[in-house]
Amino acid sequence: MIQVAINGYGTIGKRVADAVREQPDMEVLGVAKTRPNFEAETAVEKGYPLYAAIEERADRFAEAGLEIAGPVEDLVANADVVVDATPSGIGAENKSLYEEYDTPALYQGGEDAELVDVSFNARSNFEAATGAQHVRVVSCNTTGLSRVIAPLQEAYGVEKVRATLVRRGGDPGQTSRGPINDILPDPVTIPSHHGPDVETIFPDLDIDTLGMKVPATLMHMHSLNVTLEEAVDAAEIRDRFADESRLFLIPESMSIDGSGKLKEYAHDVGRPRGDLWENCIWEESISTVGRDCYLFQGIHQESDVVPENVDAIRAVLGASDATDSIATTNEHLGIGF
Amino acid sequence: MIQVAINGYGTIGKRVADAVREQPDMEVLGVAKTRPNFEAETAVEKGYPLYAAIEERADRFAEAGLEIAGPVEDLVANADVVVDATPSGIGAENKSLYEEYDTPALYQGGEDAELVDVSFNARSNFEAATGAQHVRVVSCNTTGLSRVIAPLQEAYGVEKVRATLVRRGGDPGQTSRGPINDILPDPVTIPSHHGPDVETIFPDLDIDTLGMKVPATLMHMHSLNVTLEEAVDAAEIRDRFADESRLFLIPESMSIDGSGKLKEYAHDVGRPRGDLWENCIWEESISTVGRDCYLFQGIHQESDVVPENVDAIRAVLGASDATDSIATTNEHLGIGF
Repeated sequence: MIQVAINGYGTIGKRVADAVREQPDMEVLGVAKTRPNFEAETAVEKGYPLYAAIEERADRFAEAGLEIAGPVEDLVANADVVVDATPSGIGAENKSLYEEYDTPALYQGGEDAELVDVSFNARSNFEAATGAQHVRVVSCNTTGLSRVIAPLQEAYGVEKVRATLVRRGGDPGQTSRGPINDILPDPVTIPSHHGPDVETIFPDLDIDTLGMKVPATLMHMHSLNVTLEEAVDAAEIRDRFADESRLFLIPESMSIDGSGKLKEYAHDVGRPRGDLWENCIWEESISTVGRDCYLFQGIHQESDVVPENVDAIRAVLGASDATDSIATTNEHLGIGF
Repeated sequence: MIQVAINGYGTIGKRVADAVREQPDMEVLGVAKTRPNFEAETAVEKGYPLYAAIEERADRFAEAGLEIAGPVEDLVANADVVVDATPSGIGAENKSLYEEYDTPALYQGGEDAELVDVSFNARSNFEAATGAQHVRVVSCNTTGLSRVIAPLQEAYGVEKVRATLVRRGGDPGQTSRGPINDILPDPVTIPSHHGPDVETIFPDLDIDTLGMKVPATLMHMHSLNVTLEEAVDAAEIRDRFADESRLFLIPESMSIDGSGKLKEYAHDVGRPRGDLWENCIWEESISTVGRDCYLFQGIHQESDVVPENVDAIRAVLGASDATDSIATTNEHLGIGF
């Protein structure tokens, strides 16, 4: 059994822990957190050994009635792999710790690409991570773009990608984020960082991205244009996407008009936390005009990278190939509607 | 003096009335409304003769203490031109009334292009409206797109336009509109109606548009891509846009990050109702990548068509050419920061 350490137990860390727990070939050795809060309490209730990410603050957990298994160093030392799910920039600070114990580490998309050996998306470049010590699972938006670009590039060739990312202002729990009643170009300058980030997965891709922020918390929404190297019927692209396990084509018959109903559907079918691990593509929106392909997709910022982290664990350890890992992750997480 | 009738005194009608009143060559003969409300009261306070748009409901005005000058038929009969600013679809129902009295009529962008002889944007096709009996001033979004496309097409040629329109869910006064905390593809199918609508102004243009709705009320936001026929420096495009009187290039030094600060700026400088008649383009956002030009622009849905309506009055009556009309409208409305 692969022993997985999870450093950082917030939005991503707690979901990765639960996803790892469901897999047949790995288990959660422990989770590390900087301070006690509701998430620390539920970690203990779920039986995850809780480690103190900052030793000087370990007392706070005791004061909150939470037992600590030890310092994060012990966790990292004993793990086969560590998933760093700390806030952007903290992963970089933690790198030396993982190097000290020679534990392979996965970082999240908020870290710089230069920090790691490989940026990772299971569908696009699984094998590139084999044996790497430092791997970055790209951000929710880059993951969502990569999953769509990979099959189009393989089948038809991609001349250029132009994407407008209408981003949720913050997650539901991020109560200090905005905007309220506004639409912000963010960043105002073009391209946004998303295009170059996708190029860490597809080095030769020509892609320009534009970002905005709006008063919504549930999901991002992508308005995507891919100019293909040949003209293709939209129906053929729909069929091809339907074969991709992490693309959910929302059928017109479901009458799902946005993120709210998507989340409600996920809750209704019993998804943990109402998570949507798949790209949610409106089937009717998949259109072609000559060589230009268009679509709308909703990207659940809190969860679409979770199966990618699970796959990255197997990738760095050489424990599986892409096809088997993706199938195993999907089956035990419950991906596919 | 051109005698202008305004049928419909809501969001657009009241603004057009005030703009007409400011012009040296025209005056408001009267405004027509279907029922009394706060807007009817202010029309009377401003001294606009108030006409009953629906004769059977004329009594309601008297009950609300508002004096009626007569039925809308009298207003139309005596006017040189009527601006129909009624809700979408009602303009079409009113067409026979205007024909009956042989009064040239301007309709708003919510009406079908087939209803009229000419769809109108002052910057792009002013002369096409000369002598026409039925002219449609295109919608706020189509106006905003046309103002940017015209100078690019003239200077460089346009191969293709791709635009994502992130639309406010409703105007500030439309309290029953949504969404709340959601991002909706709207329409889900691609292209949205905006592309074909722009083609009523530029018949040979290749344009694909995608629409969304978000929880904001202040302005629309366009993420615009124009593939030019030649590669151009972004600085040159910025200079060209700076010469366009109805494009406001927001300087970086103003620290305006979205619609909220734009509206606040408009209020601070004393704009009536905080109106932004110009396209509000973030200067930093104007970028080129090869032949691809990108920018973000905010479009004030309540007011950017107001100067266009004023110009269309002169255009249909042959009272001015484009350059003089635009200059007169701008000067007396107060366009330009």
